[in-house]
Amino acid sequence: MELVDDVRKGSVRALAKLITLVENEMPNALEAMENIYPYTGNAYIIGITGPPGAGKSTLTDKITQKLRSQNFTVGIVAIDPTSPFSGGALLGDRVRMQGISSDEGVFIRSMATRGSLGGLSRATGDTVKILDAFGKDYVIIETVGVGQDEVDIIKTADVSILVVMPGGGDDIQAIKAGIMEIGDIFVVNKSDRDGADRLVTEINMMLNLGATTRDWIPPVLKTIAPEEKGVDSLLEKISEHREFLVSSGRLSYQRKERIRNDIIKIVEYEIFRYLDRLIREDKELFEQRLEDIVSKKEDPYRISKKMIDAIGRRISDN
Amino acid sequence: MELVDDVRKGSVRALAKLITLVENEMPNALEAMENIYPYTGNAYIIGITGPPGAGKSTLTDKITQKLRSQNFTVGIVAIDPTSPFSGGALLGDRVRMQGISSDEGVFIRSMATRGSLGGLSRATGDTVKILDAFGKDYVIIETVGVGQDEVDIIKTADVSILVVMPGGGDDIQAIKAGIMEIGDIFVVNKSDRDGADRLVTEINMMLNLGATTRDWIPPVLKTIAPEEKGVDSLLEKISEHREFLVSSGRLSYQRKERIRNDIIKIVEYEIFRYLDRLIREDKELFEQRLEDIVSKKEDPYRISKKMIDAIGRRISDN
Repeated sequence: MELVDDVRKGSVRALAKLITLVENEMPNALEAMENIYPYTGNAYIIGITGPPGAGKSTLTDKITQKLRSQNFTVGIVAIDPTSPFSGGALLGDRVRMQGISSDEGVFIRSMATRGSLGGLSRATGDTVKILDAFGKDYVIIETVGVGQDEVDIIKTADVSILVVMPGGGDDIQAIKAGIMEIGDIFVVNKSDRDGADRLVTEINMMLNLGATTRDWIPPVLKTIAPEEKGVDSLLEKISEHREFLVSSGRLSYQRKERIRNDIIKIVEYEIFRYLDRLIREDKELFEQRLEDIVSKKEDPYRISKKMIDAIGRRISDN
Repeated sequence: MELVDDVRKGSVRALAKLITLVENEMPNALEAMENIYPYTGNAYIIGITGPPGAGKSTLTDKITQKLRSQNFTVGIVAIDPTSPFSGGALLGDRVRMQGISSDEGVFIRSMATRGSLGGLSRATGDTVKILDAFGKDYVIIETVGVGQDEVDIIKTADVSILVVMPGGGDDIQAIKAGIMEIGDIFVVNKSDRDGADRLVTEINMMLNLGATTRDWIPPVLKTIAPEEKGVDSLLEKISEHREFLVSSGRLSYQRKERIRNDIIKIVEYEIFRYLDRLIREDKELFEQRLEDIVSKKEDPYRISKKMIDAIGRRISDN
């Protein structure tokens, strides 16, 4: 596939085009991903999540600058949240990533909500793979952890960094709500604000409660992203965690789990396309069936069975 | 199916049991829903959504009390958000629904996050249908509109009420972020707080911008839920909107769209179960395939194709 070849040769234009192709679920997207796949597995994937306003974008910006100063290349996938209540916030965040937007070693891509089934996490996963195959040393996924989709996305990273901030009343809630499982590294950003030390203590206490069986105790760091305070320590912890993953065999375990989820998503997606085609090819029949269900002549379960049978026949005929 | 018969006979115990069966995705859940389906379509479904802290639970409580005083029965499905950042909040909200929890004409069910594909919206949809078949006159779905799943859920209601509150800095953002499409009725709750009138004006302005082609202009109401202020007006608007839906033919259109989504979800879910069984029945083969992908002897796309073919054969054999 020529587009994939161009991506492999380092064309940024081809890179952007290929991601668009995958994001828009074009018919040849699957073929493109098959071609991309053999070149993946070299990038290290960093997930950054946290509530709105915690300063994730600025932190991403600073981490990226540090990685660039060590001559690593970086790809960033910024997830615009699906939430109708915070959808507007991230657009402004993009502007805050000024320090890196003109750097040729950095490629930034924003992903918006996708309509279809699991579309966001599939598109994000594919984009990460494309950036990986392009040759990026690091790929950073930045997302507001609002929905199940976003949590799933962060779980696919090699390391997940959970960013919180003091105040706002959300600190205790954030700790309560089962996020401990997500974070490999905790960051209390905006740590010059009141309550930063208390928040660190609280997170550590929560971690200690559940820590007895863990072989990696997540560290809790303080940062002030705009002043770059604590960012070096954060990068050190990312390295430490990476060494832990490699030496303990967890990295390959995690990546195997990721492949497991990838396969399930690919299968679901392809079957969804069979269903979509089935409906579109005989719209009138489907609309008639809907009418029959509304008027209680049919029921959706019987119709669903018929459609599953039709999908089965189509797969077998293929 | 005996359990469904018992639900139809009015057994609250059977009702709770049937919902649990559906929520836990038991093997006979589909059969149960097939049996339930013919009895659905009589309840009126009210969706209530809004950001955390807007006072949705108290409002739900007051609306329910008013409906009860008119001798209507009410089912409530309260969605615990999937968000790890606000997951803790709703537990407290349940406590706030004190006014109705001891009333036999009211059935309250909390739904938690489901692991599997679209599980939350499927389980919620099924629960609404069960409450409908049980004979509830109204079913209220209350959810924090944080994720795509929750937005999808609210879209399945006959009427969607969007609750916001003044202050907190979220007001402007909430309006900006494309929520206008979701709300049939807007409620500025906690309207004794500063900025309530400004928020009403802002929402009305936003609504007017996009309103030229709409045949229903969403009203913007002010409420103070704990004091029951504005709750009567809200119920009047719900009735007005219902009359509009019926007279314009939109109600049957909306319900047809809901059935369309139901069918897609049932098909997806059943196919997912084929896939799940396929993986579980020959775990060793699947694990070997994952290993082969990790070591680049195989790729996930080729494996996915093989699994789709196997699903196709199984469907045809059934």
